[in-house]
Amino acid sequence: MLRLRSYLEGTWSEGEGVPATLHDPSTEEPLAEIRAAASLAGAVAYARERGGPALRSLSFAERGQLLLGLSKLLHESRDELIELALRNGGNTRQDAKFDIDGAIGALVHYAELGTKLGASRVLLDGEPDAIGRSPRLVGRHVLVPRSGVAVFVNAFNFPAWGFAEKAACALLAGMPVLTKPATATALVAHRIFERMAERRALPEGTFQLLLGPVGDLFDHLDGQDVLAFTGSSGTGARLKGDPRLVGRSVRVNLEADSLNAAVLGPDAGPASATFKMMATDVVRDMTQKTGQKCTAIRRVLVPADRLDDLRAALCERLETVATGHPAAAGVTMGPLATRDQLADVRAGLARLRAEAKSVFGGDGSIEPVGVPAGTGFFFGPVLLECDRSSEPTVVHQLEVFGPVATLLPYDGTTAAAAASVRRGGGGLVASVYSDDRDVVAEVIAGIAPYHGRIFVGSEKIADKSAGPGTVPPALVHGGPGRAGAGEELGGVRGLALYQQRVALQGDRAILEAVAARL
Amino acid sequence: MLRLRSYLEGTWSEGEGVPATLHDPSTEEPLAEIRAAASLAGAVAYARERGGPALRSLSFAERGQLLLGLSKLLHESRDELIELALRNGGNTRQDAKFDIDGAIGALVHYAELGTKLGASRVLLDGEPDAIGRSPRLVGRHVLVPRSGVAVFVNAFNFPAWGFAEKAACALLAGMPVLTKPATATALVAHRIFERMAERRALPEGTFQLLLGPVGDLFDHLDGQDVLAFTGSSGTGARLKGDPRLVGRSVRVNLEADSLNAAVLGPDAGPASATFKMMATDVVRDMTQKTGQKCTAIRRVLVPADRLDDLRAALCERLETVATGHPAAAGVTMGPLATRDQLADVRAGLARLRAEAKSVFGGDGSIEPVGVPAGTGFFFGPVLLECDRSSEPTVVHQLEVFGPVATLLPYDGTTAAAAASVRRGGGGLVASVYSDDRDVVAEVIAGIAPYHGRIFVGSEKIADKSAGPGTVPPALVHGGPGRAGAGEELGGVRGLALYQQRVALQGDRAILEAVAARL
Repeated sequence: MLRLRSYLEGTWSEGEGVPATLHDPSTEEPLAEIRAAASLAGAVAYARERGGPALRSLSFAERGQLLLGLSKLLHESRDELIELALRNGGNTRQDAKFDIDGAIGALVHYAELGTKLGASRVLLDGEPDAIGRSPRLVGRHVLVPRSGVAVFVNAFNFPAWGFAEKAACALLAGMPVLTKPATATALVAHRIFERMAERRALPEGTFQLLLGPVGDLFDHLDGQDVLAFTGSSGTGARLKGDPRLVGRSVRVNLEADSLNAAVLGPDAGPASATFKMMATDVVRDMTQKTGQKCTAIRRVLVPADRLDDLRAALCERLETVATGHPAAAGVTMGPLATRDQLADVRAGLARLRAEAKSVFGGDGSIEPVGVPAGTGFFFGPVLLECDRSSEPTVVHQLEVFGPVATLLPYDGTTAAAAASVRRGGGGLVASVYSDDRDVVAEVIAGIAPYHGRIFVGSEKIADKSAGPGTVPPALVHGGPGRAGAGEELGGVRGLALYQQRVALQGDRAILEAVAARL
Repeated sequence: MLRLRSYLEGTWSEGEGVPATLHDPSTEEPLAEIRAAASLAGAVAYARERGGPALRSLSFAERGQLLLGLSKLLHESRDELIELALRNGGNTRQDAKFDIDGAIGALVHYAELGTKLGASRVLLDGEPDAIGRSPRLVGRHVLVPRSGVAVFVNAFNFPAWGFAEKAACALLAGMPVLTKPATATALVAHRIFERMAERRALPEGTFQLLLGPVGDLFDHLDGQDVLAFTGSSGTGARLKGDPRLVGRSVRVNLEADSLNAAVLGPDAGPASATFKMMATDVVRDMTQKTGQKCTAIRRVLVPADRLDDLRAALCERLETVATGHPAAAGVTMGPLATRDQLADVRAGLARLRAEAKSVFGGDGSIEPVGVPAGTGFFFGPVLLECDRSSEPTVVHQLEVFGPVATLLPYDGTTAAAAASVRRGGGGLVASVYSDDRDVVAEVIAGIAPYHGRIFVGSEKIADKSAGPGTVPPALVHGGPGRAGAGEELGGVRGLALYQQRVALQGDRAILEAVAARL
């Protein structure tokens, strides 16, 4: 069987010990094995001593060119990566493109930002300001690259994009990266690294791939390093509270669970473009990547008098979903990524059904297209619905990471909608579908501090948007509370995680000379 | 004996249980008692339900006016607060003024910022940008106040400024505050709150005072709350890793230990203004607040061929220090704040002396002016010196929080100076004293990612600066690694800790209307 290798310290190594096996989630066929790496002390030192200096010697424009090269490499490898995503991730071609094109888009965005930031190597943050009585004595802020390594612990659902969006920010900021993809779906990231290594796409020491467990990695991190994690709240909290990371002030960024809500405004009637846009967005989020998207809409808030209309619109769209082997003709939704995910989704759905009834898809059991019955980790789309006789709890707290969403009728007031959204305890993205500016403003005012991003669906952009589930690299991604309180992307804001802001204070002329030399 | 009271939920309460006693550190006389508050669930709810909405309904300009009123209140109470700082903190009048005027300065700075930010209630972060092919579909970022409570756990050394600098940022951002001063020196903060409550200086629920232990406070915090801590690395790490705070994504900011370094450039000869400025700054930092300043210079890097000159200049200045009861005539340095601090400083000095010799002040024993021998927590200034025969370790790692600094000769190259500074593992502030722009730029390039602030001392500002030990509110305060990886102040940057950044995405015209209504 194929043995995947980590790329550490400039060489490929198979690792040691008992292997973990990667499967095709459609057929359950074993595809490859991963073994744990030995000590990671050398990899951390390699990044710090080789990768960091190499990147820091480059200008933003030069770093941007590296990202552009990387985007081209992904583009050239696109068909091959789509094929791997289909086999190892159960992705349909559309799903695989979403991941890979997302990766390319993020790289291109930050490549362009690099060009814009130009010949400098550090970011000036504001102008020099007099800070005393004398105009000579000034202060100014600069953002400099941290001198450690940026470690990524990525989720299984976006092996390409999850790596690329983090790497784009870190590399442009001037930090070398060491990325650990989720074991179950590592084939795509592994192949990307093979191509990068073949092509020497980046300077030595700036890109390392760790497959398998993190091992002793955290023993070697310190206050100049960054750990960026995407995954479950539970794992995230364990990492964030790890005494080694806390004790040495390793900067940790989490992107975790999120019960993303979508609110239909009371103004949007069933014939409106805004209503239809919402229905399309909800079903896209339920089924794209088989609902395995951290930004997917999970809670669908609808004015009680529109409940029947919206349910009908969603069910009509869900009827057209064909679940099965992603290579089989007509299939629009693949399996869940792993057997564990399937078990989690089943268990989670059972908990949701204690307070919400299934109005589409029953318990998720289906007969998949293109594989023998009982094979693969398939789960059909399920739409749940709460009635207003009792306030649900689990629906606001448990993220079921699959093709599942819940209709929650509300009384049509913005106050009630906002209060219900807030019960999610903080999320990555919420959305409001309305053409009434007061409605939109009131909902946003009520939920803004609980979210990293708010998407407004409306008539004029109904055919121009990819919906709330797609993260544009220009906008921040992350959310407070349950979502982990992290922040990534957002254009130049995304570099901050990998930079240290430092205030310089002194004689104006000297600081000007220093800024020109940094 | 005087019983200090917490100000919670709009009323004063004495608390319960076994009291802690506050002392005059000069005479050891007991001054007051503090008892633990009962459950803090009510105080947290009071801030969220009363204080938050009251502040969020105000514009930045109006919040700024509140801060201006607070600064005037402190100014009116200045003499009384100085007297309390002298008795409860062992502060000289100059030390007390440094704390209280620092508080006033921070409040005025943020009051003026409020005026500048004007009639809006949320901060726009950049302009709307097209994020798709259509110019109608845009994204923009706004910073909104978090809807929880800002909790401050403050250090004993700055009872006024420590509260005011955090409160200025939180209140201007729109968050109510609950502050817990260090028990040992709580008299000043307590009196400030008495005056605030008498005058109703701020809206109900926006200012609460917790004396004594934190009790069950952390049980009631969630992802909309903020904990800002100033104190030791050990306590800071314990707070940051607290499973209740990690698990609910409470935003935690630490400002902790720091081995602040000062580097004398090889160009600055003993007759230069720059050399003399550094000598003055080092001695000010050793003795101001009896060295109990998180920003004080602890490591003094000097080119080996200037060691004799700098030692002589420092000793000459240290000779003029008179340690004793701060009310006694001629005294320029008071006692340490507590018996525990005295024990810590003695123990720490003993550890430093294992690798550095004392060249001024021996082991810190002195006969204080104005009190009977053996009374009070006095400790004289001690200057240590390492030789270059072996590289010290403890000197770079152990912050002795008293009037102690260590001379570290280096070879005169900027590379060696920067490497030595970096051994501190991250600090609040470093300083470079040089008029050679290459020297300054090289040192800064070598140490910038390890610091929150870098002060450049030079001839032209030698008589215009308060030195690196004073934190200007316009510049960020905090540092990576050992310093806790936090960030406060920095003008408008200081509001970010108390805000949530949210990306809004949608039709340009709708987002414009929304931004105008927020």
